[in-house]
Amino acid sequence: MTFKYDNVYINNASTVAGPYEQKGPLKNYYDATYDDFYSEMDTFEQAESKMIEDSVSILLSKVGKTKFDIDLFISGDLLNQLVSSNYAASNLSIPFMGVYNACATSVEGLIIASNMVESKQIKNCICAVSSHNNTAEKQFRYPVEYGGPKPKTTTFTTTGSASAYLSSNKEGIKIESGTVGKVVDLGVTDVYHMGAVMAPAAADTIITHLKDTKREIGYYDIILTGDLGVYGRDILKEYMKTEYGIELKNYNDTACMIFDTDKQPVYAGGSGPACAPLVTYSYVFNKMKKKEYARVLLVATGALHSPTMVNQKLSIPAIAHAISLEVISE
Amino acid sequence: MTFKYDNVYINNASTVAGPYEQKGPLKNYYDATYDDFYSEMDTFEQAESKMIEDSVSILLSKVGKTKFDIDLFISGDLLNQLVSSNYAASNLSIPFMGVYNACATSVEGLIIASNMVESKQIKNCICAVSSHNNTAEKQFRYPVEYGGPKPKTTTFTTTGSASAYLSSNKEGIKIESGTVGKVVDLGVTDVYHMGAVMAPAAADTIITHLKDTKREIGYYDIILTGDLGVYGRDILKEYMKTEYGIELKNYNDTACMIFDTDKQPVYAGGSGPACAPLVTYSYVFNKMKKKEYARVLLVATGALHSPTMVNQKLSIPAIAHAISLEVISE
Repeated sequence: MTFKYDNVYINNASTVAGPYEQKGPLKNYYDATYDDFYSEMDTFEQAESKMIEDSVSILLSKVGKTKFDIDLFISGDLLNQLVSSNYAASNLSIPFMGVYNACATSVEGLIIASNMVESKQIKNCICAVSSHNNTAEKQFRYPVEYGGPKPKTTTFTTTGSASAYLSSNKEGIKIESGTVGKVVDLGVTDVYHMGAVMAPAAADTIITHLKDTKREIGYYDIILTGDLGVYGRDILKEYMKTEYGIELKNYNDTACMIFDTDKQPVYAGGSGPACAPLVTYSYVFNKMKKKEYARVLLVATGALHSPTMVNQKLSIPAIAHAISLEVISE
Repeated sequence: MTFKYDNVYINNASTVAGPYEQKGPLKNYYDATYDDFYSEMDTFEQAESKMIEDSVSILLSKVGKTKFDIDLFISGDLLNQLVSSNYAASNLSIPFMGVYNACATSVEGLIIASNMVESKQIKNCICAVSSHNNTAEKQFRYPVEYGGPKPKTTTFTTTGSASAYLSSNKEGIKIESGTVGKVVDLGVTDVYHMGAVMAPAAADTIITHLKDTKREIGYYDIILTGDLGVYGRDILKEYMKTEYGIELKNYNDTACMIFDTDKQPVYAGGSGPACAPLVTYSYVFNKMKKKEYARVLLVATGALHSPTMVNQKLSIPAIAHAISLEVISE
């Protein structure tokens, strides 16, 4: 299902990131970074929620608005019951919708908001996501303090929050279209290899997007997935070639861009709902503003991983949603 | 934030319910009921997911469609990572968006879908929700088998799934408008009194809806909240009167309608995302078809309760979303 937009723009965006991202290759692109995992709060969960509030607060300043000017707040995160989003929404007091498609949540939110902006049902919307390494690890695997060893295919959950301000004002980056993905489950059960879980969902959504828009893969200056990691990225390339005969050339994965996977202790790269938008709203938007990329397809990938269902020996379903981002034509 | 719709209809809906609902006052209104909590599956979680599939399958038959005819599937549930919805979406293979606002999820989904149908971005959508007594109890409190005693203000999570088919075809029940609520947190920390947590959010959304639509409370033949329970219902009545000077007369709460709270062992009534739509899509739609109600305001209320945050001594935020349902004028 692909939606076409004529009047939807990300007028501005904001990014706040954690201590590992602060030492990563994109460190100079974020609006703010935290030196530790607590960001002056008492617990990791409260820190994650605070990060959403910080990113929204920075965004409001950038667009010169207050929370009273905002029609809708859409947010999601990895935590059970979306607590980071809920507690941030409680403090923000903007009409709120919680969304969850794991690490595809960012683009899910952008598509819902874009549809409403395009049809003039709302005049603006803030779409946020967050993730936090320590809250995610303890919820999905083990507390970080436990120090268990992990295989190299593991990804390292990104810490931070990214927010985007959408309206029909022609400035910033254009959202040209959005593709809602289907849930894909090829039977992978390895909770330490989310790249393998998600690559087929990414492929399915890319193919759907190209079919629906009648485009060739070369239409885009770059296709970005997130967050497959270095192994998942290779699986996607291989899968696209063997299944669909498509060579992914101008392609990268945000999980491999947010960290230096050779030098930082992050296994196969970043992950979490914040990973793809942290890279896109900072580094990629910067490239677009400099006209180095005119057309970008962002494919956010989510592993719908549940420890409960994995314990019941079920495989892990995945989903991917895509948006086409364009530099505004003069 | 209130959206007005001219061309959105729930053409049909389906309801499947569990063993306690099967013995409740609305037992003759459901499309199907289950004699036990497993519904032929191995685990409660898989049973809950199966219930969504069953309700969607019944709905597709009713509207004479197959899953290939459906543009979008929006679903949510109480389970961590929305697993019931995810695994159902995986088997259905319809473009999917996961949403979560606890027990307000049903109306959140209906509003997102209504906006897209109204603006002709999609031709149809299935919106589903589920809940399951045993999966919810073990996740939020203790496994049911533990048999811990509970205070009378507790609500009893409804088991079942409800699905609605939306399109712009003028048949069934009209969705006339939808109000997106804000998160409200008055500081309640009692996890056994969700009615007290949610009543202020219900009030806030009702007031917003009336203001935005310039209506008096008497405009509606009935206002239905869900799921406050018998004590929450009284709190809302009192709160509306003292805070806003509004007497809630033609009013009931779906938590008090789905069970016989005097005779069934359900404490203060039903709860869970399935509660409000199970009552609305069965009993209330029946009343509307018989023209006993022409205008209904459904206010789904959600306690954004997280055991993690309650353990950190934080209070429980709540949210409510409303939709105005109308009998189609000839």
